[in-house]
Amino acid sequence: MSNIVFIGSGNVATHLGKAFYNVGNNIVQVYSRNIENAKELSNVVKAIPITSLNEILLDADLYVICVTDDAIINILPYLKNVKGLVVHTSGSVDIEIFNTNIESYGVIYPLQTFSKQSKPVFNNIPFCIEANSDNNLLKIRKIVSSIAENISEINSEQRMYLHLAAVFVNNFTNSIYTLASEMLGNKAISFELLKPLILETAFKVQHINPIDAQTGPAKRNDFKIIEKHLHLLKNNEMYENLYKEFTKLIQIQQNKG
Amino acid sequence: MSNIVFIGSGNVATHLGKAFYNVGNNIVQVYSRNIENAKELSNVVKAIPITSLNEILLDADLYVICVTDDAIINILPYLKNVKGLVVHTSGSVDIEIFNTNIESYGVIYPLQTFSKQSKPVFNNIPFCIEANSDNNLLKIRKIVSSIAENISEINSEQRMYLHLAAVFVNNFTNSIYTLASEMLGNKAISFELLKPLILETAFKVQHINPIDAQTGPAKRNDFKIIEKHLHLLKNNEMYENLYKEFTKLIQIQQNKG
Repeated sequence: MSNIVFIGSGNVATHLGKAFYNVGNNIVQVYSRNIENAKELSNVVKAIPITSLNEILLDADLYVICVTDDAIINILPYLKNVKGLVVHTSGSVDIEIFNTNIESYGVIYPLQTFSKQSKPVFNNIPFCIEANSDNNLLKIRKIVSSIAENISEINSEQRMYLHLAAVFVNNFTNSIYTLASEMLGNKAISFELLKPLILETAFKVQHINPIDAQTGPAKRNDFKIIEKHLHLLKNNEMYENLYKEFTKLIQIQQNKG
Repeated sequence: MSNIVFIGSGNVATHLGKAFYNVGNNIVQVYSRNIENAKELSNVVKAIPITSLNEILLDADLYVICVTDDAIINILPYLKNVKGLVVHTSGSVDIEIFNTNIESYGVIYPLQTFSKQSKPVFNNIPFCIEANSDNNLLKIRKIVSSIAENISEINSEQRMYLHLAAVFVNNFTNSIYTLASEMLGNKAISFELLKPLILETAFKVQHINPIDAQTGPAKRNDFKIIEKHLHLLKNNEMYENLYKEFTKLIQIQQNKG
């Protein structure tokens, strides 16, 4: 059981806050510049909502910073004298941001896409952790293990690449779904038809290497179909370019593999 | 119960053949140029393997052509005098390919990615059907409904766009998985870490519109992270270009939405 302060009240703070609260931790404060946001999460996890960083208690065990990357640096002066561990939850901010201000610090990076609507299954989410000492790493591992089973030690450089890869497989893939949905909509075809294929595509690489799961005209060097598709896309330069680049990429990947 | 001839013995023939056989249809012949391939499927579905198109029986109820798009045209002269329905299973070949040779024809296009390893759940796969008459459409619907619940009437133009969209959400998405796997491998990070995110990304759009499921730096206009990522990609022009194009695409999609 730890006393935890949350700095930030967005999606990550909300999901992490609830998870820590649900396993019996004491969420003592939730900070947000906006009192309504602070209250919304505070009410659920029975914490005190605060809107001034000066009000942050100094004797909590853990301070979880869940603000935008740029805002982290502005929080740190207010955490200079805290006794507990200070962590941020960002994929792309180096652990050394804490270097000059904080004594005990680390990172808790949950590798998942959080949104207000979705209820993540925490057991399944990989948590990437890092700390400025073995002792602090142990402490972080202990507290994270109360809400997650999948915990990996990942350094700042690795975390940055992991975040980049996550942008590809999550953000860019979702953007492909949007593109496909629009393409079908234009021809009065329901996006429903693609949903089983979308699922199967993600399922397949849970147990087969993606390089081996590849199918399609680019892999088969089926230039007739590729030409047909490019012809269908000729009024949308952006889609046409994407099609060409992926076709090239798949051919390179398959020749390497 | 129908008598069915399969022309072709690849992944689609194998999965469809087994499915039709399992619900009690009579698979009378399996044609392949290669006798071993013809035998492999024939043995499972208790059919006669044949390697000459001249041997095709004329009195079956259904002829299912599962060969590559280019090869379909070469099959048709041998089916000129058949009594039953002739269908192909291709996403991108117009139904009118049958026009000059065949009397009763149509298309059965299962929208899924088939591979030897994977066992598709047929109930869940959308089957797109088309025929040259209402009567033939009814016949096709009836026989397909013995193996599938999700059946849609889709014309040839729609089917072509559906196939194109499938290439985006399946082939190109899988190529992103391969890219991510390679990116992580270069930094000694396990691809395992990305698997839950890949699944969640596909799950999300089963019940949320993809345009609303979008997250990430491109959506937030977080140019600092975008710059950071482009810097990480500066030694790989292809990845860098993809990153830039998707960032632009997401911004366009979000401004439309």
